[in-house]
Amino acid sequence: MMIVMKPTATEEEIEAVIDRIEAVGARAHPSRGEEVTVIGAIGDREHVARLELEATPGVAQVVPILKPYKLASGQLRGGQATVVDVDGRKIGGEHFSLIAGPCTVESRDQMLSTARAVRDAGASLLRGGAYKPRTSPYAFQGLGQEGLRLLAEAKAETGLPIVTELMDARDLQPVLEVADVVQVGARNMQNYSLLAEIGRSGRPALIKRGLSSTLEELLMAAEYVLKEGNENVLLCERGIRTFETAYRYTLDLTAVPVLKELSHLPVIVDPSHAAGRRDLVTPLSLAAAAAGADGIIVEVHPHPEEAICDGPQALYADRFAEYVELVERAAGVAGKVLSAAA
Amino acid sequence: MMIVMKPTATEEEIEAVIDRIEAVGARAHPSRGEEVTVIGAIGDREHVARLELEATPGVAQVVPILKPYKLASGQLRGGQATVVDVDGRKIGGEHFSLIAGPCTVESRDQMLSTARAVRDAGASLLRGGAYKPRTSPYAFQGLGQEGLRLLAEAKAETGLPIVTELMDARDLQPVLEVADVVQVGARNMQNYSLLAEIGRSGRPALIKRGLSSTLEELLMAAEYVLKEGNENVLLCERGIRTFETAYRYTLDLTAVPVLKELSHLPVIVDPSHAAGRRDLVTPLSLAAAAAGADGIIVEVHPHPEEAICDGPQALYADRFAEYVELVERAAGVAGKVLSAAA
Amino acid sequence: MMIVMKPTATEEEIEAVIDRIEAVGARAHPSRGEEVTVIGAIGDREHVARLELEATPGVAQVVPILKPYKLASGQLRGGQATVVDVDGRKIGGEHFSLIAGPCTVESRDQMLSTARAVRDAGASLLRGGAYKPRTSPYAFQGLGQEGLRLLAEAKAETGLPIVTELMDARDLQPVLEVADVVQVGARNMQNYSLLAEIGRSGRPALIKRGLSSTLEELLMAAEYVLKEGNENVLLCERGIRTFETAYRYTLDLTAVPVLKELSHLPVIVDPSHAAGRRDLVTPLSLAAAAAGADGIIVEVHPHPEEAICDGPQALYADRFAEYVELVERAAGVAGKVLSAAA
Amino acid sequence: MMIVMKPTATEEEIEAVIDRIEAVGARAHPSRGEEVTVIGAIGDREHVARLELEATPGVAQVVPILKPYKLASGQLRGGQATVVDVDGRKIGGEHFSLIAGPCTVESRDQMLSTARAVRDAGASLLRGGAYKPRTSPYAFQGLGQEGLRLLAEAKAETGLPIVTELMDARDLQPVLEVADVVQVGARNMQNYSLLAEIGRSGRPALIKRGLSSTLEELLMAAEYVLKEGNENVLLCERGIRTFETAYRYTLDLTAVPVLKELSHLPVIVDPSHAAGRRDLVTPLSLAAAAAGADGIIVEVHPHPEEAICDGPQALYADRFAEYVELVERAAGVAGKVLSAAA
Repeated sequence: MMIVMKPTATEEEIEAVIDRIEAVGARAHPSRGEEVTVIGAIGDREHVARLELEATPGVAQVVPILKPYKLASGQLRGGQATVVDVDGRKIGGEHFSLIAGPCTVESRDQMLSTARAVRDAGASLLRGGAYKPRTSPYAFQGLGQEGLRLLAEAKAETGLPIVTELMDARDLQPVLEVADVVQVGARNMQNYSLLAEIGRSGRPALIKRGLSSTLEELLMAAEYVLKEGNENVLLCERGIRTFETAYRYTLDLTAVPVLKELSHLPVIVDPSHAAGRRDLVTPLSLAAAAAGADGIIVEVHPHPEEAICDGPQALYADRFAEYVELVERAAGVAGKVLSAAA
Repeated sequence: MMIVMKPTATEEEIEAVIDRIEAVGARAHPSRGEEVTVIGAIGDREHVARLELEATPGVAQVVPILKPYKLASGQLRGGQATVVDVDGRKIGGEHFSLIAGPCTVESRDQMLSTARAVRDAGASLLRGGAYKPRTSPYAFQGLGQEGLRLLAEAKAETGLPIVTELMDARDLQPVLEVADVVQVGARNMQNYSLLAEIGRSGRPALIKRGLSSTLEELLMAAEYVLKEGNENVLLCERGIRTFETAYRYTLDLTAVPVLKELSHLPVIVDPSHAAGRRDLVTPLSLAAAAAGADGIIVEVHPHPEEAICDGPQALYADRFAEYVELVERAAGVAGKVLSAAA
Repeated sequence: MMIVMKPTATEEEIEAVIDRIEAVGARAHPSRGEEVTVIGAIGDREHVARLELEATPGVAQVVPILKPYKLASGQLRGGQATVVDVDGRKIGGEHFSLIAGPCTVESRDQMLSTARAVRDAGASLLRGGAYKPRTSPYAFQGLGQEGLRLLAEAKAETGLPIVTELMDARDLQPVLEVADVVQVGARNMQNYSLLAEIGRSGRPALIKRGLSSTLEELLMAAEYVLKEGNENVLLCERGIRTFETAYRYTLDLTAVPVLKELSHLPVIVDPSHAAGRRDLVTPLSLAAAAAGADGIIVEVHPHPEEAICDGPQALYADRFAEYVELVERAAGVAGKVLSAAA
Repeated sequence: MMIVMKPTATEEEIEAVIDRIEAVGARAHPSRGEEVTVIGAIGDREHVARLELEATPGVAQVVPILKPYKLASGQLRGGQATVVDVDGRKIGGEHFSLIAGPCTVESRDQMLSTARAVRDAGASLLRGGAYKPRTSPYAFQGLGQEGLRLLAEAKAETGLPIVTELMDARDLQPVLEVADVVQVGARNMQNYSLLAEIGRSGRPALIKRGLSSTLEELLMAAEYVLKEGNENVLLCERGIRTFETAYRYTLDLTAVPVLKELSHLPVIVDPSHAAGRRDLVTPLSLAAAAAGADGIIVEVHPHPEEAICDGPQALYADRFAEYVELVERAAGVAGKVLSAAA
C-alpha cells in the first residue's frame, strides 16, 4: 500500500502515518519527493489492509498495491488456467462450453423437449431455474422443488449435467441433490453467507457478476467460495448497468480477457440476460466466443412466445443447431474447441 | 401498457399483438398514426404485466404506463405521507430524525460512550452493526450475537431505539430481539427472501438503495416488505455508483424529492457511506436536510482513528452536538423539525 | 408522442393538454383507462416535437414514439445498408474495412514506415492525427499542418486514403486538402457547428461516439452531417465511460448490431482507445468483427515504446499481418469479406 | 508517479523501467517489497508525464501522484479561495451569487420582463442564451446576434451583468461585446480551442462540467483557460449522466465540497438542467446552497408554458422572490451571504 501525503503535510503528520504503519507490524518506506512524500507500507497483506488511513491528517490518497484476492488470483497457479470438471465435461483451458436451456422450468414437456434439443445440438450442460429472483413480488417466482424434480428427470434422460440457481441458503440441500453447478445470480453476488455455504458444499459454482460490480468485487465474491476450500468456480459476465437505454444491459466483453489475466478461473458469458432480445443473442455470442470466453450460458425455449419468463430473449430450440455451428467457428478463431462429454 | 409497432409492421403483425393482449383478458386500443401504430393494453395490472411482447414480430417498443408497485405508491394514501412510529419516535411527515452511532459494534465501552454522546446531542435513534457485509472474506465480519447484546445494553441505558442490519434470514430471531428497526444493506436490497421475512416480522425496516438500483427497483424492494402486511418501511439513499472516482459513491439527492413524490414512505439519507470521508459528511448532511429528507443516518465514533471499520468516515462523538445544530437549521429551511422522544 | 396523465389528473387538465396538442396543428387521441388516461399526439414530427408538456399540470410522463432522426434512420432506405465509397475502397454492406496507422503523426520516417506496413498487411485506409485533442494543455497537441503534409506524402507513396481528425472548424480547408475521411473525435461529437461544416464539405465523415453518448445522440450527430446533404457518414463505437476502473473505457459491442438495426450507416469499432492496452486490442478486435462491425480503426506504430502519444495501445507494425489474418477470420464468421482496393 | 511492477516482473524488466525514467531526466526510487516492486519516478512534472509505461513488460499499474493541473489547484493560493469580480458583483469566498434568467432569449418583452423580475428579487447576474447547442438539427438554435442585442438592452435597463454561452470560436467577438461572463456549455467542456480563445480574451468564464466528465477533467478544462493568463474561471456542476432514468441527470452535490478542496475557483450549481422539472428546482437549489456552493445559475421565465426551449424546468418569474428567500436561508447555514451589487 502506498500512502500519498498532501503537499501541505507537516513532518509531524508524516511521522504519525509512519507510526500507524509500524503499529500494525508493517514496515514504512517513505520517499520524499520535491512536492509530496509517498510512504510505502510493506508487510503482511492482512495487517496492511487493516490500516484505514484515508482521513488521517495530511494524507491525500491511499493506493493499494496488492490485489485483495489471493486464491482467485492468476498468480496462484503461475499463470496456468483452472479447468473445472463437471461430470466429465471440462470447462476452461482450450475447452469452449455451451450451457443452454430455458430461463425457468415451466413444465415436464417444456423441460424435456428443450433438454433433448440442446443436447442434440452440442450443448454440454443444461440450465433451468427452479427458484427465480424477480424484481416484482407479484411475478412468477419459479416452481421451486417441483422444478428441481423436473431438472433431475431431464438429466436422467439426456445425461446433461445441471446448472441451476440457489437464492436462499435454506434451500441448499434440495438444490445440491440436483445441481452439478450451483448458480449465484447477479443480485446475490454479494450475498456473502450464501457464497460461503456454496463454498463449504464443494459443488462447482457459477457466479454472475453483479450488474454494477467491478471485476475486483466479482473476484472477491469468488474468493468467498474459494476460501472454503472449493476450487471449482466459474465467473460469469452478464452485462452491466450503464447510461445507455437502447438495450437492457451493456455486455462488457473487455471483462473476458481482463478476468482471464487477473485470475485462473474460467470465464463464461451470458448474452441472453445482457441483451434481453433474441436478435442480439447471436452477434453477442459470436463476439464473446471470439473474445476468448470459456463458454456461453444461453436461454433456449421450444416456444419462446409462450414462455412464462424472459421469452423475448430465448432462442428457438429448433434453430439452436445453426447457432451452435456459428459459435463453434467464432470460438475456433480464439483457439478454442467445443467441449463434449468425456 | 402501450405497444409501439415498427413503421414496417404488417396488418397481420398488428392483429397478432391485439390477439395476444386479448388472450390475457385485457382490452386492446389501437391508434393508427401516419407513421406507426400504437396499441394500448388496458386491463388488470397483473394480466397486462404477463405480456412479454418485446421480441414479437413488428413490435418496436413496449412502454409501461402503470408503476409496477402499488403499496409503495404515493397514490395509495392520496398523497398523505406515512409517519412511522418507532418506540415513540416519529419518522416522516414534518419530523426530521437523526439516526447515529458507530458503523460497527466493537466493544462495550465504544458502544455505550457513543450512545450517550449521540443521545445527548439530539439523535432519536441509535445505529450499530453486529453483522457486517464485507467485500473481503478476510475482513472483520462483526461481533454477531455479542454485538446484539451490547446494542441491547446501550438501549437499556440510553432509551434510544436500535437500528441494526440483518444479513441472513437465519439470524432473524436474535436480531428481532434487539432491533427496533431492521436495516437491509445496499448489497441485500434485492435479497427477496430476506425482504419477505422482514415483512412477515412486522418490524419497521430501513432499506438501503442498492448502489446501482433505480428508484423503481428500490420501491419494488419496499413492495416485497409491504406485501407481507408490514407498513413500516423507510427508504434510504446512500450514494450510487457512477463513473466519478474522486469519491466513493455519488450521493443522489434528486432521489429525495422524487421518492417523496412517487411514494408515501419516509426517505432517509446516509451521507457517511456515500462519501467515505469525514470532511464531506457535514456538507452532504446539510444538503440532504435542505433537500427535504426525513432524516439522516450517520456514523459517529468516540475515536474514529481507532475504529475497526470505516473510521475515516465517522464523525467525532465529542463534536457531534455542533453537527446536529447545523443539520437542524438546514432541516428547518425545508420545513422540518428535529424529532424527539415522545 | 404519448402523454401519460397522472391518476389524479382532472378532466380540466386532460382538456388543457388536448388543447395544447391541437394548438400546434397535431391531432390528440385520448385513451381513458381504468387508472390513467393516455393521450396520443399525432401529426407532423416537427410540430409534435415542439410540445414540451413534461411539467404541465396533470402530466405524469411524455413518451416519444418516433425517432428524432430521419436521415440516419434505417427505414430511410427500406432496410438497405449504405456502402460508402472512399477513393474506391468500399465501407459497409458485405465489406470489412481495416483503418490502421499511428495515433499521431510524429515524423516522416514513422509515418511512411507505418503506412507501408499496414498497406502490405491488408489495411484499406490509413489513419494518423495531425491535430490532437488532449485533456491536458501541457501535452503534445499534434504537428498540425506539418502533420497533414506528412499524411499527404504517405498517401502519395502507398495509395491509401487518409482518415484524420478535424478539431476546429477554422482548420477545415487544410484538412480537406488531405483527408479522404474527416474524423470527428468523441469529445467533439456534439460540436454542432463542426458537424454542420463537415456536412457542407461533402467529404465522408467518421463520427466517434462520445464517451457517454447514447446511440440516439450519436445518430443525431450523424443527422447534423446528413442534413447538409452529405450522405457519407461512418459511425464509430470507441468505448463508453462506466463505473469499471479495471480498463480505460468499456467497449460497447451491443452497439454494433443495434446501430445497424436503427440506421443504414456503416459501423466501425475502435478497440485501441477503448482498451488503452495493446494486449486487449486483438481480443476486442476479434469480438468486434464477430459481432458484425463493418470495420475497425486501430493504432499501429513501428516502435510503440517510443511513441509520443498512446504508445501503450499501439500494435507493433511488424506483427500487424498476423493480426489482420485473425480479424479476417472473425469477420468471416459474421459473413463479411476484407475490403480491398478496387 | 509510482510504477507498480507485476509479481512476476524480472530484474531486467525492473531495470528497463528505471532506465526509461532516467532517460526523461527524472529520478527512479525503487522499493522492493516481498511480493512486488514499486518504482517512484520523481522529477519535473512535464518530464514524468511524458512516460507512458502502462504496457511496458513487467508493469502492472501506473499511479499518478501529482495532480495534472497546476493553476486550478487549491495549493496555488495556499488554500485561499478566488473571488471573481464581475462588474462589481463578487463571486466566491463568503458571497453567494444568483445567476438567473431564461434558457433562451426569445423576444424583447420576454427578456426585459424576466430581467426586471430577477433583479428585483435579488439576482446578481442575468443569464440568457443567444446561441443554443441542440441535440437535434431540427430544433430552434437560438436568435444569435439578435439575441445578443436583446441581452445588451436588458443589461442597459437593469444594470445586471450578462452570462451567455459561446459555442463557436468564430462568434467570439460579438459575444464579448455583450457578455460579462462567457459560458462554456457541458458539450463543449473539452472543446480545447474554444477554451483557449476564451482564456486569451481575459473575460470571466463559467465552465459547465461535461455530463460524464470527472472533476479532474473539469479542472483540466479550467486549466486551458487559466494557462492563457485568465484567472477568472467559475466551475459549474449541472448534473451527470448515470444509470437512473427517473430524472434527466443526477445532480452531483458531492462535487461542491470536493471541487472547493481541490481548487481555489468558485463553484456554481445549475439545478435547472440537472432536473429538467420545475418542481425539483427548489429542493435541489436549497441542497446546493446548504452544501456550500458559491452560487446558483437558474432558469426563470415569465410564462414557462410558452417558452420555446426548456419551459418545463423554468421557475415562474412572479414567484422568484419566494425562491430567493429560501435559497438565502440555505446559503446562510453554509455561512454564505447573498451577493449584491457593489
